[in-house]
Amino acid sequence: MIPADPKLLARIRIVLARTSHPGNIGAAARAMKTMGLSDLVLVAPAVFPNSQADAMAAGSTDLLAAARVCATLAEALADTTLALGVSARRRDIVAEVLTPPEAAMRLLAEAQAGPVALVFGNETSGLSNEELSLCQGLVTIAANPDYSSLNLAAAVQVLSYEIRQAWLGHAAWPQPAMDAASSDEVEKFYAHMETALAELEFINPGSPGKLMLKLRRLFARTRLAKEEVNILRGILTAAQEAQQRANRTRNPGTE
Amino acid sequence: MIPADPKLLARIRIVLARTSHPGNIGAAARAMKTMGLSDLVLVAPAVFPNSQADAMAAGSTDLLAAARVCATLAEALADTTLALGVSARRRDIVAEVLTPPEAAMRLLAEAQAGPVALVFGNETSGLSNEELSLCQGLVTIAANPDYSSLNLAAAVQVLSYEIRQAWLGHAAWPQPAMDAASSDEVEKFYAHMETALAELEFINPGSPGKLMLKLRRLFARTRLAKEEVNILRGILTAAQEAQQRANRTRNPGTE
Repeated sequence: MIPADPKLLARIRIVLARTSHPGNIGAAARAMKTMGLSDLVLVAPAVFPNSQADAMAAGSTDLLAAARVCATLAEALADTTLALGVSARRRDIVAEVLTPPEAAMRLLAEAQAGPVALVFGNETSGLSNEELSLCQGLVTIAANPDYSSLNLAAAVQVLSYEIRQAWLGHAAWPQPAMDAASSDEVEKFYAHMETALAELEFINPGSPGKLMLKLRRLFARTRLAKEEVNILRGILTAAQEAQQRANRTRNPGTE
Repeated sequence: MIPADPKLLARIRIVLARTSHPGNIGAAARAMKTMGLSDLVLVAPAVFPNSQADAMAAGSTDLLAAARVCATLAEALADTTLALGVSARRRDIVAEVLTPPEAAMRLLAEAQAGPVALVFGNETSGLSNEELSLCQGLVTIAANPDYSSLNLAAAVQVLSYEIRQAWLGHAAWPQPAMDAASSDEVEKFYAHMETALAELEFINPGSPGKLMLKLRRLFARTRLAKEEVNILRGILTAAQEAQQRANRTRNPGTE
């Protein structure tokens, strides 16, 4: 059997969003390293760096030293083509809910093309709807319905463990079917769409309401290819140009 | 599908041997409860009960309140028919090494007959050879060879998770093939054997050396049935009686 490619594990990013307790960051780093993961990104941590994080990291302080700190989740995911959110409960926000082994398979397959991410929310509140809207799928650990509250680092351990088991089990992964758009490209598409819809007076520019969220859900389910983003943005541009022409006709005096 | 039987989870005991840090006991209780396990037994913990254990247990302090504290591992396992030790590294001490899913399957199958146990050693030194000799198999979590040091509670989380996944996946388990001897019965057999071997002058009563350990290994691999223990002890008794008769012939004056 061909040995599994260590590059794939290096491309699986663990993103911890708005972590309250620095000890959990250290314990998560330890959990990652025991399973061969190394790319840790922290989004707006309450306290970091911190001696408690170092203490809980034990022999994995190298991961903490190399960890990148971002202000927003969008920044943490900018270069990724797949981001999966981890949540204790099923949510309606994204259509696709994966088990940990399914998530591990998907992340490893997609990592052949570039960086991918697994996103963990705040200890108390989990992932916000806004954070979930940046993810293309949701991972749920089947837990005791009477007490499903896994510690953050414990959840990182379970997912990292499943990733390593999947990685050890498959030396070769099927190539991802399409040239997926990066998170940054998709976000620019959403921004473009919001601008265009406002110009079209389809939404109120000040308060777009639930509409943008519903559109995000739709596209998150489909996973966009680079080419598809270009096509969609071409359509938006065409619509914007039409609207501009319409405005000129409506107010000829402004020419 | 028939729903999985909660009794099976209740019969899977988590045994923590000589735990140094009370926080790890609390975190282990939390890991257990998230996966529906409840039977926690502590062997000679350094500190227990303790406020740090309570804090780390979060919503699982009921497991700590119900936890049984034993002086020895033998006492913790007395009523079990199967005990599996968890170790980061492969060891020569027992022949059978199981993956976490294999261990989960075995524990659930055997739990149909009565209590079974999963044994975790001290944070720094792991399970001693003496502790391992009380186990019928070893579970190894495939980890990063460069850093395989899972936190104790993280290891409890991974194994508890695998047990729950196996439990959810199988509503019905094949009945264990034989009427297995309990740990207590097997230990009495070993004690009987050691006495008999000393009487036979096969071993030095003061220092039996590695021989008893090797015999334990042998029987641990085979898993003894109640009936087999009775047969073996019958043989030992017969040998002892023969030796006593021999002694009488050698020293007729002592009659």
